[in-house]
Amino acid sequence: MAGNTYGNRFRVTTFGESHGVAIGGIIDGCPAGITLDLEAIQQELDRRKPGQSKIVTQRKEADEVKFLSGIFEGKTTGTPIGFMIENTNSKSKDYDHIKDIYRPSHADYVYDEKYGHRDHRGGGRSSARETASRVVAGAIAKQVLKNIKITAYVASVGDIAVEKPYQELDFKHIEENPVRCADPIKAAQMEELIKEVKKDGDSIGGTIICVIQNVPVGLGEPVFDRLDADLAKAMLGINAVKGVEFGRGFEGTKMRGSQHNDPILPDGTTTTNNAGGIVGGISNGMDIYFKVAFKPTATLMKDQQSINTSHEVVTVQGKGRHDACVLPRAVPIVEAMTAVTILDFYIEQFGSKF
Amino acid sequence: MAGNTYGNRFRVTTFGESHGVAIGGIIDGCPAGITLDLEAIQQELDRRKPGQSKIVTQRKEADEVKFLSGIFEGKTTGTPIGFMIENTNSKSKDYDHIKDIYRPSHADYVYDEKYGHRDHRGGGRSSARETASRVVAGAIAKQVLKNIKITAYVASVGDIAVEKPYQELDFKHIEENPVRCADPIKAAQMEELIKEVKKDGDSIGGTIICVIQNVPVGLGEPVFDRLDADLAKAMLGINAVKGVEFGRGFEGTKMRGSQHNDPILPDGTTTTNNAGGIVGGISNGMDIYFKVAFKPTATLMKDQQSINTSHEVVTVQGKGRHDACVLPRAVPIVEAMTAVTILDFYIEQFGSKF
Amino acid sequence: MAGNTYGNRFRVTTFGESHGVAIGGIIDGCPAGITLDLEAIQQELDRRKPGQSKIVTQRKEADEVKFLSGIFEGKTTGTPIGFMIENTNSKSKDYDHIKDIYRPSHADYVYDEKYGHRDHRGGGRSSARETASRVVAGAIAKQVLKNIKITAYVASVGDIAVEKPYQELDFKHIEENPVRCADPIKAAQMEELIKEVKKDGDSIGGTIICVIQNVPVGLGEPVFDRLDADLAKAMLGINAVKGVEFGRGFEGTKMRGSQHNDPILPDGTTTTNNAGGIVGGISNGMDIYFKVAFKPTATLMKDQQSINTSHEVVTVQGKGRHDACVLPRAVPIVEAMTAVTILDFYIEQFGSKF
Amino acid sequence: MAGNTYGNRFRVTTFGESHGVAIGGIIDGCPAGITLDLEAIQQELDRRKPGQSKIVTQRKEADEVKFLSGIFEGKTTGTPIGFMIENTNSKSKDYDHIKDIYRPSHADYVYDEKYGHRDHRGGGRSSARETASRVVAGAIAKQVLKNIKITAYVASVGDIAVEKPYQELDFKHIEENPVRCADPIKAAQMEELIKEVKKDGDSIGGTIICVIQNVPVGLGEPVFDRLDADLAKAMLGINAVKGVEFGRGFEGTKMRGSQHNDPILPDGTTTTNNAGGIVGGISNGMDIYFKVAFKPTATLMKDQQSINTSHEVVTVQGKGRHDACVLPRAVPIVEAMTAVTILDFYIEQFGSKF
Repeated sequence: MAGNTYGNRFRVTTFGESHGVAIGGIIDGCPAGITLDLEAIQQELDRRKPGQSKIVTQRKEADEVKFLSGIFEGKTTGTPIGFMIENTNSKSKDYDHIKDIYRPSHADYVYDEKYGHRDHRGGGRSSARETASRVVAGAIAKQVLKNIKITAYVASVGDIAVEKPYQELDFKHIEENPVRCADPIKAAQMEELIKEVKKDGDSIGGTIICVIQNVPVGLGEPVFDRLDADLAKAMLGINAVKGVEFGRGFEGTKMRGSQHNDPILPDGTTTTNNAGGIVGGISNGMDIYFKVAFKPTATLMKDQQSINTSHEVVTVQGKGRHDACVLPRAVPIVEAMTAVTILDFYIEQFGSKF
Repeated sequence: MAGNTYGNRFRVTTFGESHGVAIGGIIDGCPAGITLDLEAIQQELDRRKPGQSKIVTQRKEADEVKFLSGIFEGKTTGTPIGFMIENTNSKSKDYDHIKDIYRPSHADYVYDEKYGHRDHRGGGRSSARETASRVVAGAIAKQVLKNIKITAYVASVGDIAVEKPYQELDFKHIEENPVRCADPIKAAQMEELIKEVKKDGDSIGGTIICVIQNVPVGLGEPVFDRLDADLAKAMLGINAVKGVEFGRGFEGTKMRGSQHNDPILPDGTTTTNNAGGIVGGISNGMDIYFKVAFKPTATLMKDQQSINTSHEVVTVQGKGRHDACVLPRAVPIVEAMTAVTILDFYIEQFGSKF
Repeated sequence: MAGNTYGNRFRVTTFGESHGVAIGGIIDGCPAGITLDLEAIQQELDRRKPGQSKIVTQRKEADEVKFLSGIFEGKTTGTPIGFMIENTNSKSKDYDHIKDIYRPSHADYVYDEKYGHRDHRGGGRSSARETASRVVAGAIAKQVLKNIKITAYVASVGDIAVEKPYQELDFKHIEENPVRCADPIKAAQMEELIKEVKKDGDSIGGTIICVIQNVPVGLGEPVFDRLDADLAKAMLGINAVKGVEFGRGFEGTKMRGSQHNDPILPDGTTTTNNAGGIVGGISNGMDIYFKVAFKPTATLMKDQQSINTSHEVVTVQGKGRHDACVLPRAVPIVEAMTAVTILDFYIEQFGSKF
Repeated sequence: MAGNTYGNRFRVTTFGESHGVAIGGIIDGCPAGITLDLEAIQQELDRRKPGQSKIVTQRKEADEVKFLSGIFEGKTTGTPIGFMIENTNSKSKDYDHIKDIYRPSHADYVYDEKYGHRDHRGGGRSSARETASRVVAGAIAKQVLKNIKITAYVASVGDIAVEKPYQELDFKHIEENPVRCADPIKAAQMEELIKEVKKDGDSIGGTIICVIQNVPVGLGEPVFDRLDADLAKAMLGINAVKGVEFGRGFEGTKMRGSQHNDPILPDGTTTTNNAGGIVGGISNGMDIYFKVAFKPTATLMKDQQSINTSHEVVTVQGKGRHDACVLPRAVPIVEAMTAVTILDFYIEQFGSKF
């Protein structure tokens, strides 16, 4: 029951339900003496925030983070950073119609079975709203990591996929389109698809690619706490994620070893990077890259059949607001969890003096 | 540096290098009063053991597990179970030619960079030999779990893939062929492919599907310690694994929500199971299934260019013994790590009284 | 740097500095479905609060706890309980005169050496103000534990000590006097002593005895996570605590085994209880009792010599408000940390279904 | 049930029962590249070993440690160090007479109640024999710590107590007498007392003082993982320990703040050291010293009344071998657990590069 903490050395614990008083968290283990750019943290939150464009949910939330401790005269003190984000637009009444209903592919049913008592409003704790707290932690981790650059972008929406490898893309395009796709042409097509799906009251999945650059050799603690193992856990810990692959991933299973092996050059770099920057669970200094699969979100604007808490068949009405495609808003979440994970291993390997 | 423990409530810590005195581990948190079938544990080890068939490495290891504590009069006592497996066939000399060499896509280079001092023999700690200890822990976990059935099988080798979903396969075939594929016709084709690759001195990757049946509702501790997140970590913690997907996984990202959602029936089951038995990070009582991607093993019987510890270009000779395809031997490892993970969450949810 | 979490299964993480925006915490792992008496929680805070009587510090703080999550319709949901207590009377200016000074026997110096950057106001994170968050967690733990009764009282102040064993005292007296001593006659003497010490601008130490009644057999996880070992950690984790002893403790070291051994009766109870209810690190069903040593608080209203951050000799002025004796306010803290520890082990042993 | 691991960054997990095949453990997180003096490790074990002098138990055990992994060419590799000590003199039959008996003040009863199934031979897991594994880990920690000197000695046996503070004692005397007392005159008296008690078939308690010298400023992770809090846990985790006090401890509770405060000198040291080297849970660079209370051991050579597993009254016969006073053999255990704790915090603060 105590699964709300992530990380060991840079440790994030979150609290909060979608429609409670507030969400927030505590970051423990942040190195001391780091000057924080609070505006940059808010900007990361704004990238995740609802209502930011026409293709995402129109729920309006200010999502303003308020820091309560751990920062003094603009710098971290090494003590826990407490923070909160008030839930300003929590229309609980919007959820009265699903109070006693288990929506298909939502966590309603399993929460009730597991805990016996549930805050049903807006998904309660299982709502992706909770990830705002992770974005705060990730934004801080990014600032601590400084030179290690973490970039995520939407790589596919439904059938529309970026075909170029990340090396051939210009990351500056990512924030230029509402989809957060690094390929402007594909971005336009994805946007069209999302609009169409939205009009249908339906939803659509997709993938996000995340790239970590300037990683030092040595991050990862085998045999169990491998860098890729923990990144995988971080990714599968994000709502709607159903898969992850590193380097050549599933495609690489069809290759011969002689094709897949990455020859090492005298400077320790490799000519190819099929491994995706992680060998034996430890970073080898090359770019780390991985792809994350997001299923289509479960909330639809269509009626669906399901059951209620008395296990009777009912119709779930499709009304309210919804994200036809969560991918654009998931980009900062993927980056955040990546940053938190990388910093955790960085402190483990290099200590907490920055 | 302390990443050699897996699990919280059922906790496995392993030790040992490929060519040291012994490998082994400690299992802490095993429920008391469980009658253990020691022969069944040895059988699991035999499934992982080298030399078991013509298509795996011919290194001969007895891989006999010896229990040192925690079992009294045939039953677990609730105290830590210490065990060891002696390294009987550790031809250290076989590795003299790579003593100062960083083999491509092996962990040699990153271990040296990270730790500064390395047991190079047979890959040392980074060798998959260490997974034998996990198989012991998994075999015990399986016995504790009793009715929860965990079955893995090879789903593809290179381009040859089982096309039928697991529901249409008869799992009894798995142990009938050296590949451990549940589809006999595909198994024969895979065997041919592996032999061919082996003759070339090359290696080949593939995928394993794992199915968990009779899972109670309620396993998983969101928001971070989700059942799928920890299974993902467990899988990526296995040597050569580069990806994992749950339920419809990557393919599901192309679906609409109206297709992907699993309608709930009055008894709490769902008509489809695109989620793969896990919703919101918690088991929903349906079968859990996931697919794991293994890259081709890095050891080849071909010469490769690389560098030595002085960062000079050298040729790595392809000699000794190797696994052209690790998939058949990885099946029991996937099952073992799955069993350990499931039991860990089971104790968390239902307590340790069995 | 990440030492701000206590407990494993019932897990408390706190944040906050004495004079920051707020203090608070997150309780993870609280069983679901528990009806919480929020007023009773506030009452526990009031027992710890400054300004409650003439013999404690006159700083005025409302210490009102505000719950942010994890409680729905009056009941716990099993999700993390976030809470905060605003710092309303944080006269930062009061501390300007010690901004660059390392006060004797305060944590000023070690914090600066360890973290390099420090919120000096009111002791910052090292202030006992942080313990208010622990009292909230403890008050919740008490309610979950229900029948297990945890009672602490002041057993000595300076040389004035309660001589009767706890069995001969009536605990109802504890809240009847400002010292929180279970012996009314001694309480009056202690009160006099504290007033005298206060008039001198000095401080005085003392001891607290804590008694846990109705404890089931079986709490404790040897060999390291013994019940007494974790209670000891919990006690030494409280500001100003310098020692702890269980059962006959230090006095018992002078006894013979034939005197100290507790004979077991047919019902499993023991005729004597020199062990203090814990044998081999596990509760044996008898009352658990232990004594905690508090040093005199370091803040004095007298001038003292010390050094500043430039390592020059300076005089620390004795001005402001202070607790001449922290014992009365420490009673609820001792109870709180005891309750949290007991509940943690209780869930470990008996599961989280209440 | 998983309480057999101690430490976070330097992490020790032990296994083994008194009369099983072997005891041993795994040390995870040991820094790489440390040249280990294996003989010095064995010497520490010899200090704990039974039969070493006339005043301790005459059970004969070689207590030879065998390392199984983690050391290569004489140096640590950073991978887990597995080790075992075979149980050579495990006369199980010696314990047949107590097979169904709960001995007074032993863990027999609580183990049976907690686990339901118990290895009764020689106390099984609850036997102090397990601490040999801790001594191995401590001996390694000592070697890693190098300049930080950890010294423990017997400070009292029954009523006979060393009166001089540790600063006035010459530690070279400790190993010159079988009691391990730093004061030769008191040592002789203690030896006499132990012999007398032994002749009576009885046992006697005592105290051990431990001193840590050359400690850097900054060890400790408040607010919960304070250096003293974890040392307290480590001490209470040792068999027969019932109390611990740091610096002036219980005596200090009678002092005024003006007496107890330690004035800081320009170099950061303090004129007095009433705090015992730890302020606010963090080492301040002064000597750390603490006192540990050991109750008289429960095993007597006298008949005692108790109950059997059917809860009938029985007589426990006083026969076999026993330690009339465990203090001399407990000295290396106290040092070991101290060394492990200090190293754990050292790595946390300064990283794992040595």
